[in-house]
Amino acid sequence: MADQQVHDAPGPVPPQLPVLRWAQPPEGPVLVLLDQRRLPAHETELVCTDVPALVHAIQTLAVRGAPLLGIAGAYGIALAAARGYDVVEAAGLLEVARPTAVNLRYGVRLAADAHGRAEAAGATPEQAAGAALEAARALHRADAEASRRMAAHGLAFLGELLPGGGHRILTHCNTGALVSGGEGTAFAVALAAHRAGELRHLWVDETRPLLQGARLTAWEAARNGMPYSLLSDNAAGSLFAAGEVDAVMIGADRIAADGSVANKVGSYPLAVLARYHHVPFVVVAPTTTLDLTTPDGSAIEVEQRPAREVTEVPVPRGAVAEAGSGVSVAPLGTRAYNPAFDVTPPELVTAVVTEEGVLSPVTGDGIARLCAAARRGSEG
Amino acid sequence: MADQQVHDAPGPVPPQLPVLRWAQPPEGPVLVLLDQRRLPAHETELVCTDVPALVHAIQTLAVRGAPLLGIAGAYGIALAAARGYDVVEAAGLLEVARPTAVNLRYGVRLAADAHGRAEAAGATPEQAAGAALEAARALHRADAEASRRMAAHGLAFLGELLPGGGHRILTHCNTGALVSGGEGTAFAVALAAHRAGELRHLWVDETRPLLQGARLTAWEAARNGMPYSLLSDNAAGSLFAAGEVDAVMIGADRIAADGSVANKVGSYPLAVLARYHHVPFVVVAPTTTLDLTTPDGSAIEVEQRPAREVTEVPVPRGAVAEAGSGVSVAPLGTRAYNPAFDVTPPELVTAVVTEEGVLSPVTGDGIARLCAAARRGSEG
Repeated sequence: MADQQVHDAPGPVPPQLPVLRWAQPPEGPVLVLLDQRRLPAHETELVCTDVPALVHAIQTLAVRGAPLLGIAGAYGIALAAARGYDVVEAAGLLEVARPTAVNLRYGVRLAADAHGRAEAAGATPEQAAGAALEAARALHRADAEASRRMAAHGLAFLGELLPGGGHRILTHCNTGALVSGGEGTAFAVALAAHRAGELRHLWVDETRPLLQGARLTAWEAARNGMPYSLLSDNAAGSLFAAGEVDAVMIGADRIAADGSVANKVGSYPLAVLARYHHVPFVVVAPTTTLDLTTPDGSAIEVEQRPAREVTEVPVPRGAVAEAGSGVSVAPLGTRAYNPAFDVTPPELVTAVVTEEGVLSPVTGDGIARLCAAARRGSEG
Repeated sequence: MADQQVHDAPGPVPPQLPVLRWAQPPEGPVLVLLDQRRLPAHETELVCTDVPALVHAIQTLAVRGAPLLGIAGAYGIALAAARGYDVVEAAGLLEVARPTAVNLRYGVRLAADAHGRAEAAGATPEQAAGAALEAARALHRADAEASRRMAAHGLAFLGELLPGGGHRILTHCNTGALVSGGEGTAFAVALAAHRAGELRHLWVDETRPLLQGARLTAWEAARNGMPYSLLSDNAAGSLFAAGEVDAVMIGADRIAADGSVANKVGSYPLAVLARYHHVPFVVVAPTTTLDLTTPDGSAIEVEQRPAREVTEVPVPRGAVAEAGSGVSVAPLGTRAYNPAFDVTPPELVTAVVTEEGVLSPVTGDGIARLCAAARRGSEG
């Protein structure tokens, strides 16, 4: 069950609620999410008391973004364990809540494995639940640290690519503090550039159909005082043609073993445009996004979402705006093609920036090396 | 002044009002437009009794589409003349109502020249007004005829390009009966393919920011019983990657002397994607769209439209929805980059289909030959 607490914005730059937090009121533990469906008009918290409520929040995009989905999944297991639900069943529900972002599965398994190991070692249910919670908290902390390291690696790489500074970065969808335990992935690099006085402009794709760029990235850019402009996704071509883009920086929902990148639909057209215009196309993602069990791009399952997300326009409302709810613009009965993601082959990706370093060019061997480095890091 | 008459749709496939008509009620001559801002929810006529009302209708996109703008401009001159306004002043207002589509200027000059010639030959004001009206009517008829011939040429060319039939055509913006004295440009070719049993699927780009694809092209496709699906503009990349597009067919707002094509923003990214995927990119436009006085793409003035068209989503309302009126989705104060058009260089255009025939490859010499053929046709 999900309850709501509304904290309406008092002024132009509202104080930001935590994107995700674990709380233990007297009624029992809960996972509290900043409801991203209502941003930027309202800052609202959504309180999840069980896994079905969290699954619904994930599927309707109240909580979204690959790294954050991993963290939410891990806390979801902790929530199930702490409230005495069946952890294996909870893991089964959470893992398939959305199919493309591999981080969700990673976070769920991390916490479920911690829980299972504790049980196998003879822990009490309370102790096993504590182990799951500690695993979720560790992932949360690790993601914040990964975010800092990606920002540093990404900024250094930008400096190598574009030694003149004054970067004009084009980004797609939302990859900032709203998707992460820290400041995000691609957006965190742009923010680091801004703080270093090296961001000339951030071009923000609105990212139809659900407008994560217009609603969320513009909001994060405004809060951080960054110079930015919003554009319809299809106006990016004009920016490239005018020489107004120095680099494209995006996040990822899954990176296959060959380096193919699944990310928000519209990323692949940007990669093709970037190649045509000799502009670097840089993917920023933590190593939890790498998936060696997916051999290549064709093996990535791309989530198909409801037609109404395209036949309607999303309208923020006083009540909760479910993702895709809105006002109909197309004729009744219109069919829509609505893949949530697309896949960019490695040959179009200039670099993958992770917390373990920068991979460029992007090769299968390099992806394997990054995974090995991450494993050593988490074991060390 | 513009008045409104509302004819709400009685069922799923409403009877279509004329897109544009000249009427002479007892109160005096008027130009009556189908208000495209309110489609597909409402079929409403907008009655223009003077040139400022028509200019407002043009600027807010109640009437739109390059060929139709030419026809509307010509009738606008006829309206000014018939109502005793200064024709030179009217021409000045109408010519600059929107800067990119050259057809508007063409239509205005055609009717103003006819009026001027009649005056110079000693005609009465009524006779001169009649000459302007006859010029507008002739352009209207010629555009309908051009539409028929483009459809035939385009269908034959598709057959040459893709001898197997079963075409899957991707289109952008709206290029059907709503932009023309006839059945349109690119859409007319797809419709001809449908009638010939050769259209497997029409992929309809929604065309942000003003959603002409979702609102207008989907409506025309549904009315004509064509197999179609709507997509977010940035999902086109996935269709190309999946091999689901056999040809891109779009219209044009201006074609420069070198063959550069200005069309709705988002056309250029499609051209780059089409080239990357070895898919033909075909432009369908009457010769009135060719502009030998514009040497190349860099000389085409691209209209920049208000930020609110991007920071808001257009919402059809009970009252007139002005273009760009809608519900805010981005944070207050967000700047937007909102070019209405982009420019595709001739090397990315497989063919230009006109009523005078098909030009492929697209060269400056070929454009000049088409113009010469059109001149001979109109003189013959």
